[in-house]
Amino acid sequence: MGRVTLLTDFGTSDGYVAAMKGVLTTGAPSAVLDDAGHDLPRGDVSHAAWTLRRYWGRYPEGTVHLVVVDPGVGTGRRALAVEAGGRLGVGPDNGVFGLVVAAHPGWRAVSLPSPEGASSTFHGRDVFAPAAARLAAGASLDDLGESVDDLVRLPTPEVGGDGRVRTVDRFGNLVTDVPGERLAAGVEMAGRRIGSAGTYGEVAIGALVALVGSDGTVEVAVRDGSAAERLGVGVGEAVRLL
Amino acid sequence: MGRVTLLTDFGTSDGYVAAMKGVLTTGAPSAVLDDAGHDLPRGDVSHAAWTLRRYWGRYPEGTVHLVVVDPGVGTGRRALAVEAGGRLGVGPDNGVFGLVVAAHPGWRAVSLPSPEGASSTFHGRDVFAPAAARLAAGASLDDLGESVDDLVRLPTPEVGGDGRVRTVDRFGNLVTDVPGERLAAGVEMAGRRIGSAGTYGEVAIGALVALVGSDGTVEVAVRDGSAAERLGVGVGEAVRLL
Amino acid sequence: MGRVTLLTDFGTSDGYVAAMKGVLTTGAPSAVLDDAGHDLPRGDVSHAAWTLRRYWGRYPEGTVHLVVVDPGVGTGRRALAVEAGGRLGVGPDNGVFGLVVAAHPGWRAVSLPSPEGASSTFHGRDVFAPAAARLAAGASLDDLGESVDDLVRLPTPEVGGDGRVRTVDRFGNLVTDVPGERLAAGVEMAGRRIGSAGTYGEVAIGALVALVGSDGTVEVAVRDGSAAERLGVGVGEAVRLL
Repeated sequence: MGRVTLLTDFGTSDGYVAAMKGVLTTGAPSAVLDDAGHDLPRGDVSHAAWTLRRYWGRYPEGTVHLVVVDPGVGTGRRALAVEAGGRLGVGPDNGVFGLVVAAHPGWRAVSLPSPEGASSTFHGRDVFAPAAARLAAGASLDDLGESVDDLVRLPTPEVGGDGRVRTVDRFGNLVTDVPGERLAAGVEMAGRRIGSAGTYGEVAIGALVALVGSDGTVEVAVRDGSAAERLGVGVGEAVRLL
Repeated sequence: MGRVTLLTDFGTSDGYVAAMKGVLTTGAPSAVLDDAGHDLPRGDVSHAAWTLRRYWGRYPEGTVHLVVVDPGVGTGRRALAVEAGGRLGVGPDNGVFGLVVAAHPGWRAVSLPSPEGASSTFHGRDVFAPAAARLAAGASLDDLGESVDDLVRLPTPEVGGDGRVRTVDRFGNLVTDVPGERLAAGVEMAGRRIGSAGTYGEVAIGALVALVGSDGTVEVAVRDGSAAERLGVGVGEAVRLL
Repeated sequence: MGRVTLLTDFGTSDGYVAAMKGVLTTGAPSAVLDDAGHDLPRGDVSHAAWTLRRYWGRYPEGTVHLVVVDPGVGTGRRALAVEAGGRLGVGPDNGVFGLVVAAHPGWRAVSLPSPEGASSTFHGRDVFAPAAARLAAGASLDDLGESVDDLVRLPTPEVGGDGRVRTVDRFGNLVTDVPGERLAAGVEMAGRRIGSAGTYGEVAIGALVALVGSDGTVEVAVRDGSAAERLGVGVGEAVRLL
């Protein structure tokens, strides 16, 4: 029957997401639609890529992940359909798929042509949703467009220390790119030495802690608080293992 | 199987929308529910009408669009079920359906009686959701109530210049009621002359631009920014074609 | 086919809810997923319990209500699956189910073991979603864990006057625990005498009013405004019947 998840920075107060859902339903009447989130930071491609990475492979094979965080709509940026690890993606070629293709070396992608009559400002409705509907209805990647050799990757930050904060969630948890298995006594970040723990329960409420986060990497957190606020740091901050 | 979309200003932090979904599911167990949005500006009927217009006809015929932006709940305002352009609507008679009936001259509507035991403050759950469930389960408009001859329309602003800003989206785009095909060199708004372009890609980041928006009308936007903030204007502002 | 509702304080800007939905879909491919809300006040167990109470019984019997407002994740708090009034619940043992079990004396609950490899920080994905998927796919409560005799209840506030404000919704309505049938001439709250009415329509816009709210209890509201702001009070405030 097909399943499509939707991730955008459109908010849900204007009907833009609903217009996309209508197009999806018209094109693939039996597809199941799942909201992944519509309040991503506006135009923040890196945040979208880290968000997508969290659920890409949790869904069954064949799921179509539609991502419209698209500050370059109406420029020359390509529109893509991607296959990686058995799941499908549809969205702009601006880096949103950078992390999932990096994790799945056998990925493939095609470039989507703009349908006749597509608006220049709302490709979510006029380009991406129709393509996602076709995939959900059983089309193959090659039915949708010409194969492409590479796609836009996220800029990789220069490593400072052992790694860097790559994304910050709404709780203020600082998610780094340091593999969780490297965590021992703790980390140094923002001039602070922060001890490690296995779970929040091992530290006091309000305490800073380094732990293996749910993404599998080292995360700096404050129990029942915000590490980003406490340390006054964000994406790009260097982390050093103790 | 039926499909119901839900648009409200209830937010989703109190369980009111979930109560409506429970009633819908109980009344029409096989109906598919789609959130259109629950964070509309509180009580802003005009914004709801413009939002609804964006997705009304994108969904397949027979879809039931439930709209509960209802500042008049508990007053004498009527409750309606509407058919326009093959889609169905359920909601208060306060103007939320004003734009979709204006676009579909063959519209019909019935007045919904209040079920026994309905609360006086939550018609979304007690009046509108049960009616939407019946429609999704196959009932006809005439099964639900008595036909009505007219419904509340949105106030039409006096035309100043060639048209006016009618709605502003979360990106700060100023959506006017001037048909897109009339756009040539640009527009004048708020004392500024604003050149036209076909797409965002033709102007610099941060530049003001007039273009044909995804609603098919003239829109004033700032690439990667907010035109509403830049110009300091909102709904009702006059626009003049250059 | 099964149905699972999801209530969390995760927001939807980071992909955590989508990761849970992926796990649910993988475990119970034909289950229908309904968002109940993801923007609950962070860690506010009492608010979650009152929210859950609003829709628990509105859904058909057999529905699985997943609740992840879980400030104690990674501590020793138990994980639960609950049955009450024919509906099922999955979530932490911290009081979120306190009101629904109080309303359904024949409730039962089991303690959920942590699956091998579960993270210590994201039980929504690793403990609760898998359990909810099993229930949605037809497992019984006893398949999931060992029966427990009691669960954490919400603290019951000392009665001051005839009752207290127990929750405040986003509109600023002050929802008390005084049964609606006791309301006569009005109430006294925050040193103000507030007259009663049957509906909002009976009072002027901006007026304070006491009425029987949609939860069936006495509610203090301001027509088209916020009673919480007007009176400067919130959860815990005493109410006295006039």
